[in-house]
Amino acid sequence: MSEEIVKQIVEQGNEVRRLKGEKGTDEALIQEAIAKLTALKVAYKEATGEEYVSPNARQAKPKKEEKKKEPKPQAKKEDGKKVTLLGVGTKKDDNYSEWYTEVITKAEMIEYYDVSGCYVLRPWSYAVWESIQAWFDSGIKKLGVKNCYFPMFVSNSALEREKTHIADFAPEVAWVTRAGSSDLPEPIAIRPTSETVMYPSYKKWVQSHRDLPIKLNQWCNVVRWEFKHPTPFLRTREFLWQEGHTAFANPADAEEEVFQILDLYAGIYNKLLAIPVVKGRKSEKEKFAGGDFTTTVEAYVACNGRGIQGATSHHLGQNFSKMFDISYEDPACKEGQRAFAWQNSWGLSTRTIGAMVMIHGDDKGLVLPPRVAAVQVIVVPVGFKTDTKEKLFDAVDKVTKDLVAGGVKAEHDLRENYQAGWKFNHWELKGVPIRFEIGPNDLAKNQVTAVVRHSGDKKQLSLDGLSQSVLTLLDEIHDEMYNKALAQRDAHLKLTTDMEEFKKLLDDKCIILAPFCGHPNCEDEIKKASTREDGEGAQMGAKTLCIPLEQPKEALPSKCIFPVCTEKAKAFALFGRSY
Amino acid sequence: MSEEIVKQIVEQGNEVRRLKGEKGTDEALIQEAIAKLTALKVAYKEATGEEYVSPNARQAKPKKEEKKKEPKPQAKKEDGKKVTLLGVGTKKDDNYSEWYTEVITKAEMIEYYDVSGCYVLRPWSYAVWESIQAWFDSGIKKLGVKNCYFPMFVSNSALEREKTHIADFAPEVAWVTRAGSSDLPEPIAIRPTSETVMYPSYKKWVQSHRDLPIKLNQWCNVVRWEFKHPTPFLRTREFLWQEGHTAFANPADAEEEVFQILDLYAGIYNKLLAIPVVKGRKSEKEKFAGGDFTTTVEAYVACNGRGIQGATSHHLGQNFSKMFDISYEDPACKEGQRAFAWQNSWGLSTRTIGAMVMIHGDDKGLVLPPRVAAVQVIVVPVGFKTDTKEKLFDAVDKVTKDLVAGGVKAEHDLRENYQAGWKFNHWELKGVPIRFEIGPNDLAKNQVTAVVRHSGDKKQLSLDGLSQSVLTLLDEIHDEMYNKALAQRDAHLKLTTDMEEFKKLLDDKCIILAPFCGHPNCEDEIKKASTREDGEGAQMGAKTLCIPLEQPKEALPSKCIFPVCTEKAKAFALFGRSY
Repeated sequence: MSEEIVKQIVEQGNEVRRLKGEKGTDEALIQEAIAKLTALKVAYKEATGEEYVSPNARQAKPKKEEKKKEPKPQAKKEDGKKVTLLGVGTKKDDNYSEWYTEVITKAEMIEYYDVSGCYVLRPWSYAVWESIQAWFDSGIKKLGVKNCYFPMFVSNSALEREKTHIADFAPEVAWVTRAGSSDLPEPIAIRPTSETVMYPSYKKWVQSHRDLPIKLNQWCNVVRWEFKHPTPFLRTREFLWQEGHTAFANPADAEEEVFQILDLYAGIYNKLLAIPVVKGRKSEKEKFAGGDFTTTVEAYVACNGRGIQGATSHHLGQNFSKMFDISYEDPACKEGQRAFAWQNSWGLSTRTIGAMVMIHGDDKGLVLPPRVAAVQVIVVPVGFKTDTKEKLFDAVDKVTKDLVAGGVKAEHDLRENYQAGWKFNHWELKGVPIRFEIGPNDLAKNQVTAVVRHSGDKKQLSLDGLSQSVLTLLDEIHDEMYNKALAQRDAHLKLTTDMEEFKKLLDDKCIILAPFCGHPNCEDEIKKASTREDGEGAQMGAKTLCIPLEQPKEALPSKCIFPVCTEKAKAFALFGRSY
Repeated sequence: MSEEIVKQIVEQGNEVRRLKGEKGTDEALIQEAIAKLTALKVAYKEATGEEYVSPNARQAKPKKEEKKKEPKPQAKKEDGKKVTLLGVGTKKDDNYSEWYTEVITKAEMIEYYDVSGCYVLRPWSYAVWESIQAWFDSGIKKLGVKNCYFPMFVSNSALEREKTHIADFAPEVAWVTRAGSSDLPEPIAIRPTSETVMYPSYKKWVQSHRDLPIKLNQWCNVVRWEFKHPTPFLRTREFLWQEGHTAFANPADAEEEVFQILDLYAGIYNKLLAIPVVKGRKSEKEKFAGGDFTTTVEAYVACNGRGIQGATSHHLGQNFSKMFDISYEDPACKEGQRAFAWQNSWGLSTRTIGAMVMIHGDDKGLVLPPRVAAVQVIVVPVGFKTDTKEKLFDAVDKVTKDLVAGGVKAEHDLRENYQAGWKFNHWELKGVPIRFEIGPNDLAKNQVTAVVRHSGDKKQLSLDGLSQSVLTLLDEIHDEMYNKALAQRDAHLKLTTDMEEFKKLLDDKCIILAPFCGHPNCEDEIKKASTREDGEGAQMGAKTLCIPLEQPKEALPSKCIFPVCTEKAKAFALFGRSY
């Protein structure tokens, strides 16, 4: 098997060099090729327990390689036993990008795929998505939203109906032009989002005010053929999401719903993923094209100091209803005039999972928030001998079954070909919130040893009332993880009114509250001014993440932060480098 | 609004004539255009209460049109009140194809769409799919299957890896060749099914027998660009399904699972959709290309006498694992030899919903089996006057809420702009299993009047313990619907050993058990021999639906039914015209 991987690494290495050597190669392609190379090297280490060293390097630079081969102290030797080399080889603070690739592949969340920008969501990550789906789906159903399914294909004429909207998406639209061996009479687009797919039907369904509101949602895949560097979960050419599309007879009802949905999105981050978010409005520059205003929840990723858009809820106003003629006769209108519907659309994608990995993961690997973990407790037998094994394994099985019966997602690891220490590392890498260690001594004391993934804390739990104490512990873990992320975020959330300090804070990995006039041109200028050329290429400038709904207590200065700008500040905006 | 529809009808009529007039136009396109025309006429009737009559027809053939305009007695006049013309204009037995289009559009299950072969699944049909998903998903999870998501795109090289398999799908594959305004370096296919998408990953994951079994499933969309006449649910270019893909170390485990899944599929039909199915194996000719054997559940559609494949569970043997090198070192193998995994794949699609509509629907419209109905009970206030209204509406609201609290999917219809009779027809058209009528007299007697959709039966239910009696009634309705469909099916399930009788039975809308040698050539001959040219074009010949797992009690004749065939009969096969 390892020979096979070596062959693939060599081929992929050649491919990377070929791409770099070719003139005008798309940077995204090169980045993708490098990420695949990294993934292959991870696979090699997984299979052999050693770092991959290229044959050339072995001959040419023996000393350097010697050094590299020293084992890194990333895996604690628990239990006093010798442990296999396993775990993440890169520290999060050293190279978060490589760390991320390692974590998502070794924790079995992602498998790389041979179509660029597309990735396999393995059960370990898909289970997180299923938890999010269940929670959000029940939330929107309480608001009267119903699920449905619209086609993934969209005709050119429908796609181009709303000009502002399509101008934003056109460069990323994938086109089907052929079926079997026949060319299609007209190319057909794959939805990048479904406004233009759904609203021609809305037009048909709305003939009277009684046909409103319409409240529909679909869980589906969409395709945006971006040419920027793809990253699993965070920027992918196909991704999974839900998209809600609603239409109302009056704007107040529509606006109310925008914020109800935003609260549900905030709930996914706060209550499921243990991630604090700032709720806000997008600036004119950053809002959804063709809509009236966009609201968003924004999270903070400490390791690179970037903001990340968590989900958006748009009020479309009447822009789309006028383009698609979603209208009805209204006695309140002048003769012959029709009333147009007020619309919203809102979406949340599998990007959530990427944010969760980046924010909670550590040098040991993934850290799963308890409420979205496929396995909340992994039960591992320890310290047994041949004569105590059977009794112990039975006890482990009973404890696990009792937990499951008590509503805990528990599994045991009774594999005999791995040592306890290896199992500890394995399940830590996969981020399981609680590990139970049960040995003969624990049994004698009617207890288990619980080790908490995110903190490393150990505690003894009595076997009596175990499910209940575990459920309580899971809630505590959730709160601790949330508070840790909140403290980290708040330590990097700064307010300034000075552009020079703004730039310095940005380089200190902060997100920044600053007075802002709101104008797209000014936002462009701020971005330019905060872009930094350094040895490693351009450091991205800051953009507005949002204008927070809850404004700081500080009095708003009269002037926009950008020195040249002569406009008045309208609000504090939250700025940052961003995904 | 009706003027708008008239305009669209005229345009669509012109389009149909244009397509028919053009030489070499794809028959599928014409059929699709006709279906859309029908849907528009349905919409016209919905909006105006009258059949659409073309202006030409009005002038040219007044007499014929006069006759057509006579109201059909399709809607019973319940409650003695005048009812609006609503309901299905075509009788199921007169023209099942037009009836089907009317039912799925008027019951708000389907909206037509401007990309041929693609349809909108509205909440009323999508809810059926959600019920099926919940039931099946819980069933496979008990078997240890986990959900995941693989990309919808597949590279040409992966797609073509398994030759037999791809030969079957290649003519229907949709190709993406362009993104934004750039041509892709290589065309990328959209999955018609995911064997070739998933198995390269399986190769990576399997390095030892300990990595088996792999049991994955995904709920997703797939695209098969068929050129035959598309029909909503039954044959669509994009459809939703689940596809399970499992791999085992030994064939017995794989085969066992094939039948466990088949039992779950049968359960969806029997226990949710109230449809009897025959479990069986597909013939060599009809099996999944590239697999070892295919099992299937086959249902019967009485109105046209056709069999319909309900879902299939395939044992792929080692064909794919050899092509994709899903293998591991096995001490039991000779030195240097590797053991290959034994694989299954299994899928069930939204076609289920089409079968449900065709089998249970009647001249009043859709009939929903209770366990998949989005609304199981619709509560309608009747016989009230201004002074009794408020009290009655409060009572209706309370009854509805009590039902919901008791686990019944209940809603009320308190709209004041519709009469009770109109509501009765409306909810009958939509197929709600039980209608409650509650009037002041019912209240006085502490009862409600329940009307059962599928039978028209009326009964009084006490308000005491109502939820429980409704739950019981829903189960009874399920059983009655199942038994009705079973009786209908069994009346048309005949056994013969004579080819002439076989043809006659086929024309009598039967499906037929007949001794069969199993050879693809012979199956071709039987199909040819049973194809009938009549005035209206060719009547499709019979193919094998399956070789039933449970064989008839009758002794198997030694000879295959096809007179010219000299082979021995291997089993009774179930033949029929089919979807």
